[in-house]
Amino acid sequence: MNIRESAAQARSAAIELVATAGEVKNRALAQIADALRKNAAAIVAANRQDLERAQAENLAPPLLKRLHFDEAKIAESCTGLQSLMALPDPVGQTLAATELDDGLELYKLSCPIGVIGVIFESRPDALVQISALCLKSGNAVLLKGGHEAAHTNRILARLIKDAGERSGVANGWLARMQSRADVTEMLALESDIDLIIPRGSNAFVRYIMENTAIPVLGHADGICHLYIDRAAGLEMAVALAVDSKCQYVAVCNAVETILVHAALAHTVLPPLRQALAAKGVEIRGCEKTRRHIDVLPADESDWCSEYLDYIVSIRVVETLEAATTHINHYGSGHTDVIVTTDRHRARRFLDRIDSACAFWNCSSRFSDGFRFGLGAEVGISTSKIHARGPVGLEGLTIYQWRLMGKGHQVGDYTGPQARPFVHRRLSKTYPH
Amino acid sequence: MNIRESAAQARSAAIELVATAGEVKNRALAQIADALRKNAAAIVAANRQDLERAQAENLAPPLLKRLHFDEAKIAESCTGLQSLMALPDPVGQTLAATELDDGLELYKLSCPIGVIGVIFESRPDALVQISALCLKSGNAVLLKGGHEAAHTNRILARLIKDAGERSGVANGWLARMQSRADVTEMLALESDIDLIIPRGSNAFVRYIMENTAIPVLGHADGICHLYIDRAAGLEMAVALAVDSKCQYVAVCNAVETILVHAALAHTVLPPLRQALAAKGVEIRGCEKTRRHIDVLPADESDWCSEYLDYIVSIRVVETLEAATTHINHYGSGHTDVIVTTDRHRARRFLDRIDSACAFWNCSSRFSDGFRFGLGAEVGISTSKIHARGPVGLEGLTIYQWRLMGKGHQVGDYTGPQARPFVHRRLSKTYPH
Repeated sequence: MNIRESAAQARSAAIELVATAGEVKNRALAQIADALRKNAAAIVAANRQDLERAQAENLAPPLLKRLHFDEAKIAESCTGLQSLMALPDPVGQTLAATELDDGLELYKLSCPIGVIGVIFESRPDALVQISALCLKSGNAVLLKGGHEAAHTNRILARLIKDAGERSGVANGWLARMQSRADVTEMLALESDIDLIIPRGSNAFVRYIMENTAIPVLGHADGICHLYIDRAAGLEMAVALAVDSKCQYVAVCNAVETILVHAALAHTVLPPLRQALAAKGVEIRGCEKTRRHIDVLPADESDWCSEYLDYIVSIRVVETLEAATTHINHYGSGHTDVIVTTDRHRARRFLDRIDSACAFWNCSSRFSDGFRFGLGAEVGISTSKIHARGPVGLEGLTIYQWRLMGKGHQVGDYTGPQARPFVHRRLSKTYPH
Repeated sequence: MNIRESAAQARSAAIELVATAGEVKNRALAQIADALRKNAAAIVAANRQDLERAQAENLAPPLLKRLHFDEAKIAESCTGLQSLMALPDPVGQTLAATELDDGLELYKLSCPIGVIGVIFESRPDALVQISALCLKSGNAVLLKGGHEAAHTNRILARLIKDAGERSGVANGWLARMQSRADVTEMLALESDIDLIIPRGSNAFVRYIMENTAIPVLGHADGICHLYIDRAAGLEMAVALAVDSKCQYVAVCNAVETILVHAALAHTVLPPLRQALAAKGVEIRGCEKTRRHIDVLPADESDWCSEYLDYIVSIRVVETLEAATTHINHYGSGHTDVIVTTDRHRARRFLDRIDSACAFWNCSSRFSDGFRFGLGAEVGISTSKIHARGPVGLEGLTIYQWRLMGKGHQVGDYTGPQARPFVHRRLSKTYPH
C-alpha cells in the first residue's frame, strides 16, 4: 500500500475512532503491552540488527544509546502503557453546555483531531509512546521513524497495529512509512492529514515546517534561560544552574544561557563558575561577566545558540526587565526560569516571559510531559496556538460543537419580533 | 510608522497586556463605547464619504448595505461592547493545577496569544467587534479593513485605540494598516505576529493561507449540508431546509446541498421543491432527485460549490453512511445538520461528521458566535486544531505552564534513588 492509500485508510479509521469506546481503546493498550512482552525476543533480535548496522556505520555513541531497545526498555514501555490506561478517556468530554432556548441545547464536546503524521528520531520507545498516545486520544497515526531503527520499528509497528485491530480498533488506524520519499509525499497530503508532529534536530523540524501547509506541532529550538535575580539565594541559584545545565545536556529543556542580575554578579559568578567547571562545562561570558570571572568571551551568536552540550553562555543584566527582554528576544519560547526569594519580582518575571513554560525556583529540566503528570508526551510545543509546552493526550484532541433542537429555525430569532436567546450555562454533560 | 514598527510596538504592548487587569480592560471597553457615542456625527460623516465613493464606483447593493454604518449601527456596536464587559476575563484562569511533589506546584494558566493580525471585509462594525474581542482577551491587534470603508475605519480605529490607551492599555495595542502592500509585509512578520484571522471571500482567505508561515484561523469555504433522514418528519424537514437555505443566503452557514434518504424521496421532494421555489430558490438535482421532481441537473461541481445565493443542490442517498461520506468528502467541515426523529440515527450521524458544528433538528444558521452565547465572534474556524466553529474570547487565548518550586532539581527525581512524583490534582487556583 502506498502512502496515499495508507493516509486515505487512516482517514476512514479516524472517522470510526471518534466513536470507539474508552474500554476498547484501553483493551487495545493492554493487548499492545501483551504483544510486546510475548515478542520480546524477536524485538530484541531486530534491534540487534539495527545496532550492528549502526556500529558498522560508526553512529555516534549517544545515538547508539538511544537506538538501544532491550528487555528493560520493553518493560518500561509496558509500564507506560499501563499508566496511560489509567488516565480518563480524553474524548467525549463535555467541555461546555449551554441552553440557547427551550429545547435547544449546545454542547462543546472533546474529540480527536483526526489523522496525525509523526516523524521521529531513532528512539524506538518513542514509537510505542506516540502510537499509544494517538490511540488513547482516538487519532489515527502515520509514523516515520529514523532509518537507523528500521528493523526495530518495523516489528514494533506491526505488533502495535495488529494488537489494536484485534481489540476492535478500525483497520488501518496505524501505518508506518518507510522512506524519505514517503515523508515528502506525506507533507503534501493536506486533505488526509490534520497535524504533523516532527521530532528531531532543529534543521529537520525547520525543514518540515517550511515544506508543508499542514499544521505542525513541535519545536525547532530549545534555547532555555535561567535568570538569577538580585533577590536570589546564592546556594539555590548555583544548584539550579548546575541541574538545569548539566543534568542532561543533549535535550531541549537544558539551559543554554544564564542571566545574572548585576547586583549579584560579584558574589554569584565565582561559585557558579566553580560549580559548572567541576562538571566540565565551558563558559562563555559577556564583557561584564568577564570582569568577575576568567572565561571565554561570548558574542551575539552565543545568545542564539542551542549548544546541547557542556557549554553555557552567561550575561550580566542590570534589571529584571533587561532579563525578560533578552529572553523574549533570543529565547525560543520553550522554558525559562527565575531564581528569586521575592515573590513580587517572580510574578513580574513570569508575567513578562512569552514562553510555554515559566518556572520559579526550580530546574528547567522539569519541562516534560511525564514530570508534569500528563502520562507521556508526543513532544514539546513552542507554538502560540493549540497546545503549548509538553503535549500529552489533551493536545491531541479538539472539540466539536453539537446543537440539539426540536426543529428550531433562525428566522424566529431575528427581526422586530425576534425571540431572545436564553444562553444559560448547563451543568449537565452530553447525553451519550 | 511603518507596518514593521507597528508590529514591533504591538509585540511590546502584548507583553504588557498579559498582566493588564480585567477592570482596566473593561474600563477601556466602556471608554470605547463612550467615544463612539460622543463622536457619532463624525463617524456617520466619514461613512457618508465612503458610501458616496462606493456609489460612484457602482459597488453592488449588498456590499453597499454592509458598508452602511449609521447611528443605529453605532448603538448596536455599543450594546455589543456592554455584553463583552459582562463576560468573565478569559485571561489568568487556572485551567489545571497539579502538585508534582512537596512544594512543587504546576499551574496551567490561560493567557493571550499575543499579536493578532486581522484582515477583514468592508463591514465597519466588524472592526469594532474584533478590536473589542482582542482587547478583552489581552491581545494586541493589527487591523486591515477593506478600502471601501477607509474613512469609516480610520476614525473608528483612532477612537478605539485612543480610548484604550487613555484607560491604561499599553500604547500601540492597536494599529491600522492601510494598503495591500502592508498586508503583504504583514504576512512575512512571523516573529511579531502570532496569528492571522482573515475574513473575506474564499479566494482571498485561500490566498492568505498559502502566502504566510504564520498560523491562520478561519475558513475559506462554507459548504454546509442538511441531511433529511429516513426517520425525518416531513414538516420539520422542509421548514429547516428553507430556514437553513433562505434565511440569509450570502453567509457561510447557509446550506448549499440537501441530502435526502431514498426511502423518503418521493414524499419529501415535491413539498421541498414547492417550498424552496416559493422563496425563489433554483434547485439542481442528481439523477434520482430528477425522477421525483422536475429540476435542473446537478453535476460534480455542484457538490463542491458554495453558491452564497438562491441556489441549492439536492442529492438522494441510499443510507445514512452515504450521507456522512458525501459530507466528509465534499463538505468544508463547517456545519452539517441531520433531521430525524430517531436519536440512535442522529447519534450515528453526529459521530461520523468530521465538521466543526454537527447539528440535530435545527437550522445550520445557528452556527454563530452570538447565537452560541460566546458574546461575539472573530470568525468561524474550519481548522482541526486550536479553535473550531465560531471563535469568541476563548479561541483568542492559549495557556502558559507555571511551575513554582523551592529549589527543586531534576537530579533528585532520576536514577536508582529517584524520588517519585506525587502528581496530585489540586483544586486551588493560581496564586495571583
